[in-house]
Amino acid sequence: MSASSPGEQLHAFAERLYPICRSITGNGVRRTLRIIGERIPLSINEVPSGSEAFDWEVPLEWNIEDAWIEAPDGNRLAELGRHNLHIVSYSEPIRATVDLAALRHHLHTLPAKPDLIPYRTSYYRRQWGFCLSHRDAEALEPGKYHVVVESSLAPGSLTYGECFVPGRSTQEVVLFTHVCHPSLANDNTSGMTIATELAAWLASEPRRFGYRIVFAPGTIGSLCWLRNNEHGLKRIRHGLVIGLLGDPQPLTYKQSRRGNRDVDRIVPFVLRNLDASSRVIPFEPYGYDERQLCSPGFDLPVGRLTRAVNDGYPEYHTSADDLSLVTPGKLEESLEALKQIVTALEDDVRYINMCPKGEPQLGKRGLYGSMGGSSPADAQRAMLWVLSQSDGHTSLVDISAKADLPLASIKQAATQLEAAGLLKQQEDPAPPANEQ
Amino acid sequence: MSASSPGEQLHAFAERLYPICRSITGNGVRRTLRIIGERIPLSINEVPSGSEAFDWEVPLEWNIEDAWIEAPDGNRLAELGRHNLHIVSYSEPIRATVDLAALRHHLHTLPAKPDLIPYRTSYYRRQWGFCLSHRDAEALEPGKYHVVVESSLAPGSLTYGECFVPGRSTQEVVLFTHVCHPSLANDNTSGMTIATELAAWLASEPRRFGYRIVFAPGTIGSLCWLRNNEHGLKRIRHGLVIGLLGDPQPLTYKQSRRGNRDVDRIVPFVLRNLDASSRVIPFEPYGYDERQLCSPGFDLPVGRLTRAVNDGYPEYHTSADDLSLVTPGKLEESLEALKQIVTALEDDVRYINMCPKGEPQLGKRGLYGSMGGSSPADAQRAMLWVLSQSDGHTSLVDISAKADLPLASIKQAATQLEAAGLLKQQEDPAPPANEQ
Amino acid sequence: MSASSPGEQLHAFAERLYPICRSITGNGVRRTLRIIGERIPLSINEVPSGSEAFDWEVPLEWNIEDAWIEAPDGNRLAELGRHNLHIVSYSEPIRATVDLAALRHHLHTLPAKPDLIPYRTSYYRRQWGFCLSHRDAEALEPGKYHVVVESSLAPGSLTYGECFVPGRSTQEVVLFTHVCHPSLANDNTSGMTIATELAAWLASEPRRFGYRIVFAPGTIGSLCWLRNNEHGLKRIRHGLVIGLLGDPQPLTYKQSRRGNRDVDRIVPFVLRNLDASSRVIPFEPYGYDERQLCSPGFDLPVGRLTRAVNDGYPEYHTSADDLSLVTPGKLEESLEALKQIVTALEDDVRYINMCPKGEPQLGKRGLYGSMGGSSPADAQRAMLWVLSQSDGHTSLVDISAKADLPLASIKQAATQLEAAGLLKQQEDPAPPANEQ
Repeated sequence: MSASSPGEQLHAFAERLYPICRSITGNGVRRTLRIIGERIPLSINEVPSGSEAFDWEVPLEWNIEDAWIEAPDGNRLAELGRHNLHIVSYSEPIRATVDLAALRHHLHTLPAKPDLIPYRTSYYRRQWGFCLSHRDAEALEPGKYHVVVESSLAPGSLTYGECFVPGRSTQEVVLFTHVCHPSLANDNTSGMTIATELAAWLASEPRRFGYRIVFAPGTIGSLCWLRNNEHGLKRIRHGLVIGLLGDPQPLTYKQSRRGNRDVDRIVPFVLRNLDASSRVIPFEPYGYDERQLCSPGFDLPVGRLTRAVNDGYPEYHTSADDLSLVTPGKLEESLEALKQIVTALEDDVRYINMCPKGEPQLGKRGLYGSMGGSSPADAQRAMLWVLSQSDGHTSLVDISAKADLPLASIKQAATQLEAAGLLKQQEDPAPPANEQ
Repeated sequence: MSASSPGEQLHAFAERLYPICRSITGNGVRRTLRIIGERIPLSINEVPSGSEAFDWEVPLEWNIEDAWIEAPDGNRLAELGRHNLHIVSYSEPIRATVDLAALRHHLHTLPAKPDLIPYRTSYYRRQWGFCLSHRDAEALEPGKYHVVVESSLAPGSLTYGECFVPGRSTQEVVLFTHVCHPSLANDNTSGMTIATELAAWLASEPRRFGYRIVFAPGTIGSLCWLRNNEHGLKRIRHGLVIGLLGDPQPLTYKQSRRGNRDVDRIVPFVLRNLDASSRVIPFEPYGYDERQLCSPGFDLPVGRLTRAVNDGYPEYHTSADDLSLVTPGKLEESLEALKQIVTALEDDVRYINMCPKGEPQLGKRGLYGSMGGSSPADAQRAMLWVLSQSDGHTSLVDISAKADLPLASIKQAATQLEAAGLLKQQEDPAPPANEQ
Repeated sequence: MSASSPGEQLHAFAERLYPICRSITGNGVRRTLRIIGERIPLSINEVPSGSEAFDWEVPLEWNIEDAWIEAPDGNRLAELGRHNLHIVSYSEPIRATVDLAALRHHLHTLPAKPDLIPYRTSYYRRQWGFCLSHRDAEALEPGKYHVVVESSLAPGSLTYGECFVPGRSTQEVVLFTHVCHPSLANDNTSGMTIATELAAWLASEPRRFGYRIVFAPGTIGSLCWLRNNEHGLKRIRHGLVIGLLGDPQPLTYKQSRRGNRDVDRIVPFVLRNLDASSRVIPFEPYGYDERQLCSPGFDLPVGRLTRAVNDGYPEYHTSADDLSLVTPGKLEESLEALKQIVTALEDDVRYINMCPKGEPQLGKRGLYGSMGGSSPADAQRAMLWVLSQSDGHTSLVDISAKADLPLASIKQAATQLEAAGLLKQQEDPAPPANEQ
């Protein structure tokens, strides 16, 4: 793969996002969105601290300048400058001298992975803490430790970004990725990177649907977005939460809450054709922002695409989730899969056969070979399938799956038949009402 | 297992019931119900001979004092006093001398199981007969045999017993066991024993449903019960025919006629979690009193729980179905399974999430850990599942099955969420109308 | 198998049909229908050239007297008299001398099967051509070739035949077989032979449904039939396209377009019981006249029965599809299967249990053994099944499948129960409306 390969370019973008110290609020998110905004047009939304979002409230804004522990021997440990994971996210400011026993109450380690730094947060209970490798923590000598957290917790705002690519229809596809994790490469600089490049590609040609790509902090961020967009949710025809897209595991689709939405039909169809090792897993109410988008009061037709799942790889939420875990090849594969998913969403059109009594005579329209006796070519089979199934209910994706012929062939057959006046496209149905 | 173990106590109770010579009417049933009535409050119902029960009529009451065959050498064979199975149930009284050829027309044996006495009845055609081992029958010498059946067939009544344990709801669970078989231990002193002890346990604490435990003779007994209770059948929310619960085979659930009732969902759920070797078999119109309860005119939501099925074990309807086939361990396991089934029926409640837009913030209510970054404990997963699925249609049993978390954890999560005002219990739906 | 076995008789009939040079129009079809008409009453329909049939038009009538190629050495090749397949069907008349290079544009061979003559047609584009073995074509020497096609293309008509066997009901079963292929034994002298004999058998006793057996040229023939019968299509309760019934492959049922019609339930039921190796394949819009009958504007409840499928055997559409491929045994088996299918269609009746509360007392009606204790015989089980399931919705075929008892036993039980006044037959439902 040359330095300018699409995968390398994705990886280079991820490298710019990785070092930033993000949290659910603060300048890390703003800096991240600024970089994304260099590539795609992004509207930035600020939601003030104290704003209500359903059962939640936007917390104080957190920013951090520096943090470290000074050991009795004068050496500095767990310095923010060495790794963003060293500080528990949302740690309150402190400057104190404590003995080792007291310090240990504020230290977080992974005894089972003694060389890795864990990722910890405390957004909604005020405290401070440091994360470090278990090996380093075990080696601490008794004595006085000086701890410094130069952070601020103050009224401010939560920031999220949104890129809207309009389409011919008023119906929309929403793509959600979380932007609140600090230096974790797969979770989720990979998702932010892919979402950015996908948005650029989406804007590169006319689309059937509008596409709304949202870059928001997890949980409270998606709740703010839902609150701000509650009246527009009825426009959402399909949605995907995306993230964790650079690791070596196969592509994994998590179904929407109901499990029987159009997106639950179309994404597995694409993945199945793309990669036999891809997986489809049922909905569960834990994970990323599908927790909010699929909560019973919204119950949106939103699935999730990742490679590994949350807590499903050894490097998850540790310092080992770094830029070496995320490879150009996997990033490129993930982007390609998403482009094919978008193509299938766009091509999932329903037609009506305008000549439904018997087969139309394709031969007289130059669409069928004149010599009989041998079996028809795939292009002709594709036309027979489209004619047979186009009853206004069965979509091109359905036909492709039934016929076991590529969606592109089915699409081309439909285009030829429509040009010959034998098919008429059905209007898009109204978006599904929330039946709760 | 100590002498006072629950299983031993069950076996001891079965030992009291086993020797009684029962039939579909008569003093054997009354004596049986008297013993059961020592343990639980039992209302006794007498239905006079000649009473109509749908297409049937209660026959004359049959009682028997003694019966035997006196061989030419003066020895007595097939004496009632040696085994109740020796006499064909409902044999008419006779006192006669016949030669061997004539006698053979009245003898019943099992050539394939030459040492065992078969169980035979002739409730609706007047005749007399003896059952004996094929080996004994083959050894009979030519000569004159004196046969004596000291029985009576006279107007009287059919007897059944019923124990009702009231609940908070007007809806009921009906439990049916047959009491008409003489000395057959698995079929059905085991069922009578378990039903008795289950009734005692049901009465030991408040219940959601009323429980109606019916001890009745097979076929004509359940038809009489149905006739007497026809107007109350609409109160039946679930039902189970139980019997054959002491043999070594795994627990076996037979589906209701429709196969898709709540009981068909809940009992297999419990058995699956209890014993991987348990079985679910489809409905067939042969077996025990589900034949009547599930006939198309009633079509009740009633399944059946046994271990072996009718005609499904070598000792079935022979003298080998004795107290050694039925073990304390299996009796205890069966009772425990039924208690868990009752618990699941009671806990199969539907809730509505009162805070359905996004997840409620569990942390501020002390229901969720404050430290983020590691995965939630099972108790917290259970809460997320209950919140996600509580749409008024999905019950706790459904959620437990979907989440693959124990019903007890799901129940506890629901209790905590309800206490926090986040859930409201749905009213019980009206009992299913008979859609025939 | 003796010379007069049913299978031999079928084969002898096929031998009469095989040598005729058929096409979609012309005297070959007429001669074929005349032979069939010797065995069964057949109405002959002539549809004039130029008649419209939906999107199609009946072409000029084609007849052929002779055709050959005379090689430079004076030898004749590809003579019609040697094999009907030598001439491309619908070849226009020609008499010309051409060199080898020019001739080759008109030759059709099978390089992968160098000894076989292919079958080729050109109904809708005017041209001429010869088919010969690849080996013969390769051996041609350079030089002048004299080609002669003594054919005619002139206004005339398309011919199809129809045999109608009336039934008690106004509802009909339609059976379709194609008559347009020249000397191909399996495809389709086998289908014509079986359809003829089945029609004779159908007429041999009173039937519930009317049966309409159609012998028509493929595609344009079925379109003409559909046009002529469009207003009667609502009478069609079931249908089958039949053909390719003499080869060694197992019986193969192809589902109707919807895949969930009564015929899709009943035919697989019969085949399953008849032959474990039989196959059920999903609908696809390629094949025989199901292409037209199941087009979305008609969408008839019509499946297809063959052994091999189109293009599913090495001899397909070649000179190797001759009378040795088709065996008396397989012809007889196919006919027997169709008789059993007809029986099942006829017996797929729904009853209502007139005594639905509890089991009726079968014993007092002499329908159940009087001695209890042993398990019931199959005949009694069949009665219990019929009583249990006869709710007006479940048919005898459904009951046979559920009970795993032979349809004949279930039918007999229903007959006995109906005679006893315990069952009443349901009216046939109205034929399914075309829901398009």
